[in-house]
Amino acid sequence: MADQLENALNYARKNNEKFLHAFKQILAIPSVSTEPAHASDIRKAADWVATHLRGLGMQKVQVFPTAKHPVVYGEWLGVENAPVVLIYGHYDVQPVDPLDLWTSGPFNPEVRGENIYARGASDMKGQIMVVLNAVEALVKTGGLPVNVKWLFEGEEEIGSPNLPTFITENKDLLASDFALNPDSGMIGKDYPTLTYALRGLAYFELRVLGPVQDLHSGIYGGVVHNPAIALAELISGMHDAKGRINLPGFYDRVKKLSKEDREELARLPIDDKHFLEITGAPALYGEAGYTANERTGARPTLDVNGFLSGFVGEGSKTIIPAWAMAKISMRLVPDQDPKEVHQQFLQYLERNAPKDIRWELTVMAGGPASISDRNNIGVRAMSKALETVWGMPPYFRREGGSIPVVKDMQSLLGIESVVSGFGLPDDNVHAPNEKMHLPTWYRGIEAGIHFFTNLRP
Amino acid sequence: MADQLENALNYARKNNEKFLHAFKQILAIPSVSTEPAHASDIRKAADWVATHLRGLGMQKVQVFPTAKHPVVYGEWLGVENAPVVLIYGHYDVQPVDPLDLWTSGPFNPEVRGENIYARGASDMKGQIMVVLNAVEALVKTGGLPVNVKWLFEGEEEIGSPNLPTFITENKDLLASDFALNPDSGMIGKDYPTLTYALRGLAYFELRVLGPVQDLHSGIYGGVVHNPAIALAELISGMHDAKGRINLPGFYDRVKKLSKEDREELARLPIDDKHFLEITGAPALYGEAGYTANERTGARPTLDVNGFLSGFVGEGSKTIIPAWAMAKISMRLVPDQDPKEVHQQFLQYLERNAPKDIRWELTVMAGGPASISDRNNIGVRAMSKALETVWGMPPYFRREGGSIPVVKDMQSLLGIESVVSGFGLPDDNVHAPNEKMHLPTWYRGIEAGIHFFTNLRP
Repeated sequence: MADQLENALNYARKNNEKFLHAFKQILAIPSVSTEPAHASDIRKAADWVATHLRGLGMQKVQVFPTAKHPVVYGEWLGVENAPVVLIYGHYDVQPVDPLDLWTSGPFNPEVRGENIYARGASDMKGQIMVVLNAVEALVKTGGLPVNVKWLFEGEEEIGSPNLPTFITENKDLLASDFALNPDSGMIGKDYPTLTYALRGLAYFELRVLGPVQDLHSGIYGGVVHNPAIALAELISGMHDAKGRINLPGFYDRVKKLSKEDREELARLPIDDKHFLEITGAPALYGEAGYTANERTGARPTLDVNGFLSGFVGEGSKTIIPAWAMAKISMRLVPDQDPKEVHQQFLQYLERNAPKDIRWELTVMAGGPASISDRNNIGVRAMSKALETVWGMPPYFRREGGSIPVVKDMQSLLGIESVVSGFGLPDDNVHAPNEKMHLPTWYRGIEAGIHFFTNLRP
Repeated sequence: MADQLENALNYARKNNEKFLHAFKQILAIPSVSTEPAHASDIRKAADWVATHLRGLGMQKVQVFPTAKHPVVYGEWLGVENAPVVLIYGHYDVQPVDPLDLWTSGPFNPEVRGENIYARGASDMKGQIMVVLNAVEALVKTGGLPVNVKWLFEGEEEIGSPNLPTFITENKDLLASDFALNPDSGMIGKDYPTLTYALRGLAYFELRVLGPVQDLHSGIYGGVVHNPAIALAELISGMHDAKGRINLPGFYDRVKKLSKEDREELARLPIDDKHFLEITGAPALYGEAGYTANERTGARPTLDVNGFLSGFVGEGSKTIIPAWAMAKISMRLVPDQDPKEVHQQFLQYLERNAPKDIRWELTVMAGGPASISDRNNIGVRAMSKALETVWGMPPYFRREGGSIPVVKDMQSLLGIESVVSGFGLPDDNVHAPNEKMHLPTWYRGIEAGIHFFTNLRP
């Protein structure tokens, strides 16, 4: 059996070029889930994944339609007494704008130096390929030592609106011992990382409506509340002077950080200097009384993701805009509930919006935060695998991002998730020039081979 | 001579269709001055005006280049002892977006009911055509009873950056007794109006810069000041709870309204109900302690004309934007100085901008407010002309819009302007579906014939 491990690792090393070729294929598909114009690309990406699974000998491979984008399922259950691992992934990606800031085309994958650049390289087509390649190496050298089921969705970047329904309607099909969710990253390329807590998300679009149409700002300046100013005033009131969020009752359900939690977060090898370097901001900002690691990992936040009103082209236009719109989202922590946060947001607006404007609030996406069991067989197998490849035990961290499916797996299937991945902090996820660090990606494939081998009965 | 008046009025009535045809021609030229893509259309509009002037027998007609868009000059000085009227106009127009809200194409003029719809129909190609047609009616029926000079610019909608230089360099050429500036409008179609005060303008673009690029709002939410929020906070602080503008020293030079000023403004036949109806806002807004007419005509205001940051497309994108931009402009009253207001804005930002973001302020346009002599021969001639056509003496009003050239004519040429025009409050200037009310336009042409005739020596 030790022979198969060596053979699989050798197979992976010999097939680096082949793996990279397949990686480029999936990256070239512009599967942007939020843009209706890309619906056929989404379908193309789903089919690509299904075809790849069939090529690995997976069984019952099927593209399931949902109310929006399809789910891809597949399985291989050939080892008696071995655990069943439910491998999660999403084949959709974020939009690419601002396009002019990309050095190479977002769907024209290009290797420059040690990195491959393309939308989805890190989030998360690169992670999907790590697992597919690790499985390929094992399949081609004697067979998988464990049982696997695959669940790939195409709606993660729009908040997975149809995944919970799919899981609920297919509980038997998806029944497993635990899930592997590689939609996460590492603290740094030399620091193997396991994520045990994820923030939730509540995403809204707020529109402020003023005059029935744009008005001449000279003739009407002084009689109507400018919708862009009214929206700015509402947004301005959402934080207090200490960086706390002003929605009524917003902190009521926020779990206090224990002494142990804070000590563990303090041990992470990242500090203010790291955040300053990686963001390029002139100074850090955040809720008073918490460290940067606490603020990003264990405290809720509120951000404006977009703001549009009036004339934003070149030059000047002297209007009072008819409306203003902001995309506003909160990252949530245990035990906040996105539905309650929606009510708190409505209350805030009812209390604070002036009577001289109208407003509309739309829920765009939402999911609760999650904390995982850190001692199940999956986490132990991944921890050992990471230690073998990197030569040091992994850091356990709380991550600021949201992976609502981890919570769904707990509540709908009753299983924990191993949340780990091989993205790096400077991968530009959700931004121009998204990339994957290829040496780390190859190490990830080796870690995957170790992980599955560690689960052998 | 009374015969000529009758003949000219008859000529105008008989040639309504011809006048409308020429009006449609100039409206069809997309002379948007702020958009570089329309530079050749600007030139086309200037040539159209020059050709039209030549057709009316005007002399020394010339298209003068400037640093940006050309000035069109022409003159006819055939009546000894008669005053010289300098007729001002601008052949450029505002941008047309949002294009999808136009019922017919902005440069495809269409008559529906009593109105003609097109960008520039009211502001101010329609006003230019009123004067050109009135002059045509007189030229074709015995000749102009006064002397005229014409000054048409193509940069009014971008703040006339090159006009003061042109005027300064051509003082002798432009020497006149007074100016006619029809770039204004009426209180309502039944209320002839003369404008004697205009607000000034100070227009800026403010950019707030945060992280060097868009960041994942999950991973980095909590460590950087969101630029859209920081800009919203800065904008929110620009007004106090009473609707007063918070820039340091902003009101220092604002002339107090006299008892007479307030009484006169109170006599205007427009009230809060009028402003509610025409704007469609759910309630009015403005500086406490002043009426709507005072706030729009005689008090300074600050508006956000546009705001852009982050992801504003369909759907959701979870980013912290790298930057946020707002177009912010102030309407000024005597004796505020746009250059001083720029300094006050800089001071406000230096005092209030947090250290965790960077900011840049760009001056886009500016011009001071003006108050005109209400008793010169030009105003008397127009007042009498309006009374003849409408059967009632005109209202004298302060207008909220800005016509910096009125101030330039005072300071550079030493002449007053007659500011009057035939636009209506619901003409949608600077907005989709801009229109001109044709019955009012025809009355305007008749008023123009009376005006020139009233100036006969």
